[in-house]
Amino acid sequence: MTQFEEYAKLLVEVGVNIQKGQNLVISSPVDCAWFVRLCAKAAYDAGCREVINCWDDDELSREKGLRAADDVFDTVPAWRVDMLTGYARGGAAFLRIAAEDPENLKGVDPDRLLRLRRASGKALEEYRRLTMTNAVAWSIGSIPIPSWARKVFPGRVEEESMEKLWDAIFAAVRVTGDGKAVERWREHTAAIQERVEKLNALNLESLHYTNSLGTDLTVRLPEGHLWAGGASRTKGGVPFIANMPTEEIFTAPLRNGVDGVVYASMPLSEDGNLVDKFYMVVKEGKIVEVHAETGEETLKAGISVDEGASYFGEVALVPYDSPISNQKLLYYNTLFDENASCHLAFGEAYSECIRGGESMTPEELKAHGLNSSITHVDFMVGTADLRITGRTRDGREVPVFIDGNFAL
Amino acid sequence: MTQFEEYAKLLVEVGVNIQKGQNLVISSPVDCAWFVRLCAKAAYDAGCREVINCWDDDELSREKGLRAADDVFDTVPAWRVDMLTGYARGGAAFLRIAAEDPENLKGVDPDRLLRLRRASGKALEEYRRLTMTNAVAWSIGSIPIPSWARKVFPGRVEEESMEKLWDAIFAAVRVTGDGKAVERWREHTAAIQERVEKLNALNLESLHYTNSLGTDLTVRLPEGHLWAGGASRTKGGVPFIANMPTEEIFTAPLRNGVDGVVYASMPLSEDGNLVDKFYMVVKEGKIVEVHAETGEETLKAGISVDEGASYFGEVALVPYDSPISNQKLLYYNTLFDENASCHLAFGEAYSECIRGGESMTPEELKAHGLNSSITHVDFMVGTADLRITGRTRDGREVPVFIDGNFAL
Repeated sequence: MTQFEEYAKLLVEVGVNIQKGQNLVISSPVDCAWFVRLCAKAAYDAGCREVINCWDDDELSREKGLRAADDVFDTVPAWRVDMLTGYARGGAAFLRIAAEDPENLKGVDPDRLLRLRRASGKALEEYRRLTMTNAVAWSIGSIPIPSWARKVFPGRVEEESMEKLWDAIFAAVRVTGDGKAVERWREHTAAIQERVEKLNALNLESLHYTNSLGTDLTVRLPEGHLWAGGASRTKGGVPFIANMPTEEIFTAPLRNGVDGVVYASMPLSEDGNLVDKFYMVVKEGKIVEVHAETGEETLKAGISVDEGASYFGEVALVPYDSPISNQKLLYYNTLFDENASCHLAFGEAYSECIRGGESMTPEELKAHGLNSSITHVDFMVGTADLRITGRTRDGREVPVFIDGNFAL
Repeated sequence: MTQFEEYAKLLVEVGVNIQKGQNLVISSPVDCAWFVRLCAKAAYDAGCREVINCWDDDELSREKGLRAADDVFDTVPAWRVDMLTGYARGGAAFLRIAAEDPENLKGVDPDRLLRLRRASGKALEEYRRLTMTNAVAWSIGSIPIPSWARKVFPGRVEEESMEKLWDAIFAAVRVTGDGKAVERWREHTAAIQERVEKLNALNLESLHYTNSLGTDLTVRLPEGHLWAGGASRTKGGVPFIANMPTEEIFTAPLRNGVDGVVYASMPLSEDGNLVDKFYMVVKEGKIVEVHAETGEETLKAGISVDEGASYFGEVALVPYDSPISNQKLLYYNTLFDENASCHLAFGEAYSECIRGGESMTPEELKAHGLNSSITHVDFMVGTADLRITGRTRDGREVPVFIDGNFAL
């Protein structure tokens, strides 16, 4: 078995954990078709009913962004909504191969992108809810494409950039070609689970973030919040891993309970544009100011997709001294960068982050203090000197992070 | 402008003749994405509203055919039907890049393929009708892929086979890179139009085919039949070219008016399988016997898709001495092989082949003697010694083909 085959098998058997007789929807760039074929084979090996493909292409998306008629960006075709929602309702698993040029949509009218994001957020609301509440198994993995590899490893010939990005990804997802990736992932998720339990036992009321960038942020947590990480479970009880790699443990902040200033520690590739050197001012949960040296317009559009987009939906902890972080690479791809750094997300919260949340209605989730939005965007805040101090509901102060690493 | 760009432009501006503000649906293998991008650019250059992509992949189709659950082949997903039918109703143009391994589905259970063909024929009936009646503009073109090129030019290194197939295709579609392909096509379709008019003026009652292979077939033509070829026109009056290349002129036979024996002169790639060295016995229009040295089961499945599949829908004339025929190549791809040889098709007739047909209901078309089916499969019957004798409605005999070429 090649490393590529081992990786495909890992995504299918551990990532979405395909079940006998289940449909698998694979979304991918057309340029990654060769790897999708390996995933499809692994899925049929495991008894998948049918592999359904959803293809996209950076260059065609860019041409469309730049040159299609303006009204194209106000709607999502019904067939696309029916396809995704229909397969999700029917219990399919969803695998995404995420690989794109981080600046693919640079120069495209930001208003078009914002309108499209709003339109798809609205049209795909049920599909999004079915994934965000773990009604279905889903997983995101990545493989290199040249435009992305060039950005991560610039100034090299294409083959070298591609090879280096492959090596980095294989290390991040613990695939060595020895056929033991599945076992390594079992140990890895067990270790994450230990941290999750430690933090849940503390029953924190809030977290206070400070570092030398200038971050000074208090994040209150809802009563009954749960930390999660590693494997998730569908409502039917099937474990799956939503992101591969994953190093984070995460929960939901109290919607109106975030206050202060937070500085990003890495650039963010958002909607095909780069946002860099940015900070936010937050008052009673709402992002009231954003400043960015690069891409401020993109960031402003991002938090104005809907009302919930300017509130927080996730707080996630990743040690500064951890495998992906220690690669000292900027991937320009959230799947990797978020697992190298403590981060926050604006937008929708995950319902698994509150006790009983997966069977709550959207209204009940809101009543418990979880934010709701059609968007969910992670950005990185971890630094070598990040300190996070927890406060328990009985008033004790607990160091959670000291010098960028877990202090528990 | 490269030859590739010129070809893409030709397919978009002359093939589907994209109109300002019109949607363009491009169907293509994922491996042809680089060429689809050229087509998309040409379409936006011409003012296209949006390019929508439908992707497929030989290897994923084959894996599915071999290994998906058995009930997968009994239905076509509603979203796919809605997508194609919806864009056709909305007046989109449809461009197909046809490129496949001629034996891609060899070994797949023929019953699965037959059920899938029946299911899609039924589900996509409206879409098919909208294209077969020229309610929308559509065009099929091809570019090489390695599995196909290897079949046409075996025993060579891949690059050489690919290059030779490119050269053959460029010659067939009259693309030289001089930027004058559009003008050459204007002259070419005018020449075809002359032949069409000559044949229509004869108002033939029947055609009698004979050659040394053993063919001895009489084909009666409906009253009011029309020969067509070169450019078609949408109901809205926009000229388009359904096949590029095209050399044929064609009409519809009288459904119950075909009798005798007909021998194929080339192999046929049908549903991913090869059928070779075959002949048919026809009685009162119906194919009552088929014999094939290779792929007889595939051929039998092909004519039993529905009742109309065992009757004829097209009779097409191509001189043995014509540009594609003179390449002396077997393309294993109907788009090219049908333009190198006189052919017949079993299945659906084109409504443009009878006076006023494009505004007739399916019942009216039937009443005029045109066959109806969810399928339409061309097979080649032309040889160097083919003789076709026409009989006019006033009883004269007219040589139409002598020694494989037009005698008019």
